Amino acid sequence: MNNKPHKSALIIGMGLIGSSIARAIKQKKIAEKIFAIDNNKTTINLTKDLKIVDAIFEKIENISEQFDIIFICTPLSSYKNIFKELNTFVKIPTLVTDVGSTKVSVINDFKSQVDNEKILFLPAHPIAGLEKSGPQHGFAELFKNRFCIVTPINPDDNFVVTITNIWNLLGMKVEVMESEHHDRVLAMTSHIPQLIAYSVVGTATDLETQMKDEVIKYSAAGFRDFTRLAGSDPVMWRDIYEKNKYAVLEMLGRFSEDLLTFQKAIRNNDLKFLEEKFSKSKEIRKRIEEIGQAGTFDPTEKN
Amino acid sequence: MNNKPHKSALIIGMGLIGSSIARAIKQKKIAEKIFAIDNNKTTINLTKDLKIVDAIFEKIENISEQFDIIFICTPLSSYKNIFKELNTFVKIPTLVTDVGSTKVSVINDFKSQVDNEKILFLPAHPIAGLEKSGPQHGFAELFKNRFCIVTPINPDDNFVVTITNIWNLLGMKVEVMESEHHDRVLAMTSHIPQLIAYSVVGTATDLETQMKDEVIKYSAAGFRDFTRLAGSDPVMWRDIYEKNKYAVLEMLGRFSEDLLTFQKAIRNNDLKFLEEKFSKSKEIRKRIEEIGQAGTFDPTEKN
Repeated sequence: MNNKPHKSALIIGMGLIGSSIARAIKQKKIAEKIFAIDNNKTTINLTKDLKIVDAIFEKIENISEQFDIIFICTPLSSYKNIFKELNTFVKIPTLVTDVGSTKVSVINDFKSQVDNEKILFLPAHPIAGLEKSGPQHGFAELFKNRFCIVTPINPDDNFVVTITNIWNLLGMKVEVMESEHHDRVLAMTSHIPQLIAYSVVGTATDLETQMKDEVIKYSAAGFRDFTRLAGSDPVMWRDIYEKNKYAVLEMLGRFSEDLLTFQKAIRNNDLKFLEEKFSKSKEIRKRIEEIGQAGTFDPTEKN
Repeated sequence: MNNKPHKSALIIGMGLIGSSIARAIKQKKIAEKIFAIDNNKTTINLTKDLKIVDAIFEKIENISEQFDIIFICTPLSSYKNIFKELNTFVKIPTLVTDVGSTKVSVINDFKSQVDNEKILFLPAHPIAGLEKSGPQHGFAELFKNRFCIVTPINPDDNFVVTITNIWNLLGMKVEVMESEHHDRVLAMTSHIPQLIAYSVVGTATDLETQMKDEVIKYSAAGFRDFTRLAGSDPVMWRDIYEKNKYAVLEMLGRFSEDLLTFQKAIRNNDLKFLEEKFSKSKEIRKRIEEIGQAGTFDPTEKN
């Protein structure tokens, strides 16, 4: 007999996150069967080769059975369509959650497309990732000890606890937040750093050729940390800036003002200002290390 | 009998880089004896406990012997004084090199203080580092396969080859550059990314308290990569912005213009522009990985 808490799980989108969820479900014995959908042929073949799901389909209409839990792990621009398809597809009470980096837009898309009461949806955002994309880079431990922010549409819904438990089983620490607040916090912790990383890399790309080659060659000096972020999926990020436009523009304004104060201090040789600001930043880093969210950087190459 | 290439080495400044040089000299058997100077009592005690040098002094005037090779590994603001002291101290032909992150200012400081022809100085910049400071964090492999840029004052000097060989022995690939060009390249690869990292962390620090706590808590989303850079030594960086002021201001201007084009694209929902720019950045990352300068990031915590 099998005592896994759920019979079957469906993962829509087998990128880095989707494939990591598939692996973690298997490892943690959360569901008996794991199914997947992806609209990219290469991803489908990679997933088959990796043997991390029981079956993978190109379209939801090709699937005859129903599921206990569905994870949406696709770029934000696909959500509206996915919710529309689920609205028709779902026939039994089904737990649905997602991994999208914005939450206000996800809830709006849900509300605009879904009137099927069998869909029990808890918007979620596991704060975990890598600069790599594709199912070959996923791994079960990606979620271990990381935070998952959930933004319930109605906090009193019974299924909120059930889905929260699933995220816990996947290894995550779950925190509840208002969707608007989530989008502001993530604009600062994620969307702005990413945009700036893209922008710095862009500036380097526009330099005269010789200079550009040297910037790449001597990137170990700090630039490479920015390119690491800039290695992630372009479509995913394009969608994030569309969906979290206003919070991003607000935080970007704050950042630009602060950068100008640094620029002014350098121009005016205000060394005291610089040293004070730099020392404060060091404190923030210490706090991140203390709470165990720093990760580990090894300046040497693997292999 | 001993067949190490040099009798004795002196390292001025036992921070991360100085202590790593000490370790590498020992490991690679480059000098028979290793001596050090540091003006900080804690650093002196740490160095003694680590047993990585034969003796450590607080001041150069306390030292009675002479050396074959001297490494200057202190913040840039101390160079003028160090050159002045060496000008008096050095009695035999002595190889001198440094690790400073700017090279024009270093050469100017040298020229203004040194007329002792026994000082054979090759300005150098090993592109290797970590966000940690202090001798306890150093390690011999820090230089392995990394680039060291040298900017000879007179490329025909015989000792240029001798000192280049020492950097090679320490594990580095040495490249020759004009000092002005070095300072522009490093402004882009190092000084601008670092300043931006400080600025982003500063913006987060200024947020209302609750928001700030959340930014720290959910930093795994990208922000933590910026704080990693911001964890390095404040005095070292303060000096860099003073000494490389004009190249930094030029590159900062370019960056700000580029960031504004991203801001405009987000405001105008120009998704095509964003996706194209993001895809280009991914290419740059690939090239850095291909040339083996990417380092390794592990999103999990050690211990």
